[in-house]
Amino acid sequence: MTDTATTRQERFEHGLDVLGRIDGEAGDNVLAALSDVSPELAHQVAAWGFGEIYDRPELAPRDRQLVTLGMLTALGGCEPQLRVHVNAALNVGLTPQQVVEALLHSAVYCGFPRALNATFAAKQVFAERGLLPVVPA
Amino acid sequence: MTDTATTRQERFEHGLDVLGRIDGEAGDNVLAALSDVSPELAHQVAAWGFGEIYDRPELAPRDRQLVTLGMLTALGGCEPQLRVHVNAALNVGLTPQQVVEALLHSAVYCGFPRALNATFAAKQVFAERGLLPVVPA
Amino acid sequence: MTDTATTRQERFEHGLDVLGRIDGEAGDNVLAALSDVSPELAHQVAAWGFGEIYDRPELAPRDRQLVTLGMLTALGGCEPQLRVHVNAALNVGLTPQQVVEALLHSAVYCGFPRALNATFAAKQVFAERGLLPVVPA
Amino acid sequence: MTDTATTRQERFEHGLDVLGRIDGEAGDNVLAALSDVSPELAHQVAAWGFGEIYDRPELAPRDRQLVTLGMLTALGGCEPQLRVHVNAALNVGLTPQQVVEALLHSAVYCGFPRALNATFAAKQVFAERGLLPVVPA
Amino acid sequence: MTDTATTRQERFEHGLDVLGRIDGEAGDNVLAALSDVSPELAHQVAAWGFGEIYDRPELAPRDRQLVTLGMLTALGGCEPQLRVHVNAALNVGLTPQQVVEALLHSAVYCGFPRALNATFAAKQVFAERGLLPVVPA
Amino acid sequence: MTDTATTRQERFEHGLDVLGRIDGEAGDNVLAALSDVSPELAHQVAAWGFGEIYDRPELAPRDRQLVTLGMLTALGGCEPQLRVHVNAALNVGLTPQQVVEALLHSAVYCGFPRALNATFAAKQVFAERGLLPVVPA
Repeated sequence: MTDTATTRQERFEHGLDVLGRIDGEAGDNVLAALSDVSPELAHQVAAWGFGEIYDRPELAPRDRQLVTLGMLTALGGCEPQLRVHVNAALNVGLTPQQVVEALLHSAVYCGFPRALNATFAAKQVFAERGLLPVVPA
Repeated sequence: MTDTATTRQERFEHGLDVLGRIDGEAGDNVLAALSDVSPELAHQVAAWGFGEIYDRPELAPRDRQLVTLGMLTALGGCEPQLRVHVNAALNVGLTPQQVVEALLHSAVYCGFPRALNATFAAKQVFAERGLLPVVPA
Repeated sequence: MTDTATTRQERFEHGLDVLGRIDGEAGDNVLAALSDVSPELAHQVAAWGFGEIYDRPELAPRDRQLVTLGMLTALGGCEPQLRVHVNAALNVGLTPQQVVEALLHSAVYCGFPRALNATFAAKQVFAERGLLPVVPA
Repeated sequence: MTDTATTRQERFEHGLDVLGRIDGEAGDNVLAALSDVSPELAHQVAAWGFGEIYDRPELAPRDRQLVTLGMLTALGGCEPQLRVHVNAALNVGLTPQQVVEALLHSAVYCGFPRALNATFAAKQVFAERGLLPVVPA
Repeated sequence: MTDTATTRQERFEHGLDVLGRIDGEAGDNVLAALSDVSPELAHQVAAWGFGEIYDRPELAPRDRQLVTLGMLTALGGCEPQLRVHVNAALNVGLTPQQVVEALLHSAVYCGFPRALNATFAAKQVFAERGLLPVVPA
Repeated sequence: MTDTATTRQERFEHGLDVLGRIDGEAGDNVLAALSDVSPELAHQVAAWGFGEIYDRPELAPRDRQLVTLGMLTALGGCEPQLRVHVNAALNVGLTPQQVVEALLHSAVYCGFPRALNATFAAKQVFAERGLLPVVPA
């Protein structure tokens, strides 16, 4: 890979592009809410998290969301981020049934409380997008 | 132990029985809230969590609630589950004083923030059941 | 779906089948190590975790491993389980490059210490299977 | 150091003094909310947490708040305590810029979700104290 | 309760008494290992953790160990403390079968990895005390 | 601030410089161990973690280590990283007494098991550097 020199501003704008394709409006809202308290955190979420890591082709976007759903469920206390990423998961091609199944799977590794909290966070997103009820395939 | 064949539906109904005796209405509400998003998770909470594990006689119901209060406090971010299980603890014979003492004890192992969050979750349950103030025995 | 009655023993044997196809020898070793301390936990890992949850067709085996790697990394302190599931991930079709990328991705959500611990656990498995160095695709 | 005998009540009052100097009104509110559910937990937060540990001269108050912000961010689910301690951090001399930077730093070790949740908790405190926007120094 | 004045040294010695009755030699070993790095932490474990909290009569020693086993399992990464407290649990009257059942129960709330790690920590203690195999009652 | 264009390689080398000044040899060893399994993770630890975040002047190096010690203690299961950062803390001017005090302070927020595990990790570093016993100031 060629290693073209880039400015900080260029890396941020590239990150915004990647972020927009995956998280959509929900991602923009997070960055906007940071603008008066920690613009640097907003910069790093976009420039590094999305521009550097999410942008790598080694793992498909839907696969990244599966890993992400697993991590956010396990961490606990990340319901706002879970809602963003359930949206992202749907945006990149996972079905509601697959999201629900991944969260059911989490019961095996994280226990029922984490699985329940994540499933109810997903339910909120499904409700907003008119996807309830989730009917088994 | 004889190993009688059972259907999935029979195991679910057995789990509902056990769940009802311990968690009461609060448990039913969780299952109902899952019905349009993850009926399988509702099935597994009842059929496995309660029908298989809670139903075992090796540990008394009050002892299971003590362990459970310890785990939910330590996990953090499980306030909804803590409220269900503070109710359950009272249902199976623990006193408000014992619940409060178990959560005080958690400060030693989990630190004050977890102990505080759990104690305030318990306070909500005590308030709903008319058990405040909790007066030291 | 028909709901055939099954015995506890039948459900255990079905779980062992599923476990064997995914975790292979590493899974068997865990169950064997439990046999003199908690045979019931061994039963439940196999009969419930694998026979009931892993066996569901709603998510492909490779997708379940992606979610699982995310959860085990986020939980922390699960290096033994990570080694079992890095093996499982390779068994069901993920490449070493994809495993490594999923763990890199975890840095965004769990921070570097969790990503490092998971990556070094994966390295042990890759070494045992003669898969080092992992060369970017 | 001389080892003067003290009563439990004296240790509590000493703790209240230390607590008042660091956490101010926010700390008093937590203790008041405990009074009808777990007065012993209130006693121990004050008498032990503040009277015994915070009072030690081996680490400056601002340094204790830096460590505390790191721990509360990493634990997750401690947003109420984070708000108390962002207030405390400002009370003992850390600037809003330093608080924000410490929380940005947490992204490296805890990942973005924890850093975001903590930063939004800090934003609430800054808003209440009229400190927004936080302008880079 | 009368509120007799005590010295710091008296509170430490009282804590050592309580600690000795519960944790036995394992507790002493932890304090000894701290003596050249953090004697104050040793003091606080004994004087506060045991002398103040464990000593309270509101919860029986066996009940405190049940809560403690739940918390240490849920926290993760506390295998050394789990070994101390599996010993303590046996010292205060819990049977190996009850300890094993409490750890099985943890699978419901914390997932299998935490339950497995805790069960293997318990197995080490049972082996040292000649209590293997644990035979279901 | 001017926004000079940089190459990926330049950002990596800058990160290595910052890393070397803080973590010293321990940091280099981590990167070397990653070279055959995840060179990209090594790149990101250096280029982003150190080159982007640690390099910011908004928080003094000793203050970053205080926050970091708090986070690693709270996360649990990060003993390898704690050893690296206890070394780093000493490298940037914290005394052994201050490190020990920060870890004692963690007992208030994270409980004794995390405080003990972190203190014993620090003890290993102090032993390697000939700094035992740590004598109260």
